Amino acid sequence: MHLLQIDVSPRGARSHSRALTAEFVAKWMAAHPGANVVYRDLGHNPVPFVDEAWITAAFSNPHDHSPALREAIRLSDELIEEFLAADVIVIGSPMYNFGTPAVLKAYIDQIVRVGRTFSADFRGLVQGKSLYIITVRGGAGYGPGEAQHGLDYESPYLRVIFGFIGVTDITFVDVENSAQGDEVVKASLALALERIANLAASSACPPAASRLINVPLTVAT
Amino acid sequence: MHLLQIDVSPRGARSHSRALTAEFVAKWMAAHPGANVVYRDLGHNPVPFVDEAWITAAFSNPHDHSPALREAIRLSDELIEEFLAADVIVIGSPMYNFGTPAVLKAYIDQIVRVGRTFSADFRGLVQGKSLYIITVRGGAGYGPGEAQHGLDYESPYLRVIFGFIGVTDITFVDVENSAQGDEVVKASLALALERIANLAASSACPPAASRLINVPLTVAT
Repeated sequence: MHLLQIDVSPRGARSHSRALTAEFVAKWMAAHPGANVVYRDLGHNPVPFVDEAWITAAFSNPHDHSPALREAIRLSDELIEEFLAADVIVIGSPMYNFGTPAVLKAYIDQIVRVGRTFSADFRGLVQGKSLYIITVRGGAGYGPGEAQHGLDYESPYLRVIFGFIGVTDITFVDVENSAQGDEVVKASLALALERIANLAASSACPPAASRLINVPLTVAT
Repeated sequence: MHLLQIDVSPRGARSHSRALTAEFVAKWMAAHPGANVVYRDLGHNPVPFVDEAWITAAFSNPHDHSPALREAIRLSDELIEEFLAADVIVIGSPMYNFGTPAVLKAYIDQIVRVGRTFSADFRGLVQGKSLYIITVRGGAGYGPGEAQHGLDYESPYLRVIFGFIGVTDITFVDVENSAQGDEVVKASLALALERIANLAASSACPPAASRLINVPLTVAT
């Protein structure tokens, strides 16, 4: 069993999402002795934007590539191999401006590649992965009937794009209210930690389809 | 009158979105003699991701900033000043993986800043701008009732995030089918160029609210 842990926050000790992926990994390792963890720290070691050479290389026959074109997608190849080697992937990410931080989109733009993760006729080529996505947002109330409904461009988008490459077993833990006062944050994080620990410990039985676990505020603001 | 032109594509001569913003600017300048154009080339000169020092600086009192913290948001300050100085902004962007290219999100993460473009109580602080957004996507059919409906995470998101900072006069030109055969692309681009030329020439009378102009395929695939 291989677990890929991806942290997106540029923060260190102050990051909530890093603390939550760390908890997931600790509990998951306890439940899967002898398993491997590979760590990808996008927040502190960002991946570059795709450039024109990347596009030329990604949309042409690898047998025709010059050394320069091979180099243009070398990192993309590495990231894809790393992703494909994992059985379970956990991503921890803040929400920035109602969407993913740019560096997570840069990672997505690197790994969504024709012939590698999706086919020329737009079928996903990735199979057998369980993906856990932990998002942390300062506000709250993005659910149906709530004040911010329709403004979450992070989790719904991640479901679409990972589904596009074939990853459909996705569990979301959307943690809210991280920008509230200390007591509120503490309560929200405590609840999230409990949920994540339970998910990680039971992850040998992955769900059949994606599901959403929303961890909202539980004490009055 | 000041126009800010923002190009997102990492391509050069092969970029359709660059050709379309160039057409907009040419026609706009013809209609507004003596106006100024400022050019921001994100595709060839990407802006960095926000980092921990950026976050610390952006969420603290500028009067307390060390030289290092001032430096951490110096580019953000410049980008915001540049944006605020414009009366009209035109953004040309491809769609990548159903969303904005990561570099456009990186730009958004730089300019959406509390106390500068939105207030602490989440009101937009930007006023009096007309924004034109030209997107180019390889596929087609993102409208209601069409095959890809609900999968456009680019234009709806851009409407939300620019609206959040106070830019509500937004005109979209979503150009489809850029990944089809030559004749189809040629027809789609010809239609887009005509629409854009008309918009630019009449931009002295900005619309009151955002509107969407979809430039679909007009010849059979």
